[in-house]
Amino acid sequence: MANQRHDHPVTPRTKDEKAAITNRLKRIEGQVRGIQKMVEEDRYCIDILVQISAINAALKKVGFSVAERHTKHCVTDAVKNGEGNEAIDELMEVLKQFSK
Amino acid sequence: MANQRHDHPVTPRTKDEKAAITNRLKRIEGQVRGIQKMVEEDRYCIDILVQISAINAALKKVGFSVAERHTKHCVTDAVKNGEGNEAIDELMEVLKQFSK
Amino acid sequence: MANQRHDHPVTPRTKDEKAAITNRLKRIEGQVRGIQKMVEEDRYCIDILVQISAINAALKKVGFSVAERHTKHCVTDAVKNGEGNEAIDELMEVLKQFSK
Amino acid sequence: MANQRHDHPVTPRTKDEKAAITNRLKRIEGQVRGIQKMVEEDRYCIDILVQISAINAALKKVGFSVAERHTKHCVTDAVKNGEGNEAIDELMEVLKQFSK
Repeated sequence: MANQRHDHPVTPRTKDEKAAITNRLKRIEGQVRGIQKMVEEDRYCIDILVQISAINAALKKVGFSVAERHTKHCVTDAVKNGEGNEAIDELMEVLKQFSK
Repeated sequence: MANQRHDHPVTPRTKDEKAAITNRLKRIEGQVRGIQKMVEEDRYCIDILVQISAINAALKKVGFSVAERHTKHCVTDAVKNGEGNEAIDELMEVLKQFSK
Repeated sequence: MANQRHDHPVTPRTKDEKAAITNRLKRIEGQVRGIQKMVEEDRYCIDILVQISAINAALKKVGFSVAERHTKHCVTDAVKNGEGNEAIDELMEVLKQFSK
Repeated sequence: MANQRHDHPVTPRTKDEKAAITNRLKRIEGQVRGIQKMVEEDRYCIDILVQISAINAALKKVGFSVAERHTKHCVTDAVKNGEGNEAIDELMEVLKQFSK
């Protein structure tokens, strides 16, 4: 069961939830392609950096929404099953990475 | 001339420089697509978050290499032309965004 | 009771826990005073920046240890009382600030 | 001379410049002491985290103002003396630390 928890979220993502994240990721993918085009056209460095910052911000937003859902479902579930601390350690570890 | 500086870097990127950045961006684009697949397959949240952190780190690396080249060419050139402080203000502004 | 939760942690910090955080904060306070001395002595900028980065890293560490304890006590308690989502929203909000 | 550059900024900080940074650092020092008091009083974790975020933001501000002055004086000077790239590498290295 602990193993199962590591393959999927405890509550499967709904079709709408999947669509919402996927749309944001598709937009981010488009932004990354946009920077490739800017490099190809030899565009001004600062303009490229502004775009990279925008993508980083967008990715962090997606990340925090994934983390929030994770905490509300998987961590909450673990807490109720008496396995909360392990789930919280795992969450904190990944959020530390995130805050770099 | 100040205007020209804002469209392109003072020293055009070489073919090799373009290729180096483009390769890294293509890899990042692939990683973003990879996350879409993970969401589609309803993969475990923490695994998705680890991937998002990895992309953020990769993007920051690209960003710093763009910023370094910018400083060594565009800012250096501006300093030699007595327009250094303006270029430095612009650089700092974008690096502040970056450090968020 | 919701009000009480906002004044103190649900499980009071033990004497040892307080001492552990206080020691780290005292060290950080000393580091901040150290930078003041460096500025007074007109020390090299890069050396000052390295010190500031070190303090930021130390503060983040303290922050994450506070966040971890908060999640293991206050959030866990809220989850068990059926008020988990509110506590999680509050946690995520502050962690977003943190990751800037 | 390269050695001298590593002990002090090329242009000594004026009395006013020193006072400006010192004031900001004294305020930060006070904020760190404030958190110690909050811990002593066993204050709510989230309130402590908000304060830590505020200090981090204040430290970053000081850091960027030091970095800006460094670039406008030390790096600019190095560029004019044909030692720009070395100074820029050093600057980028420390800014990478900073953006973590």
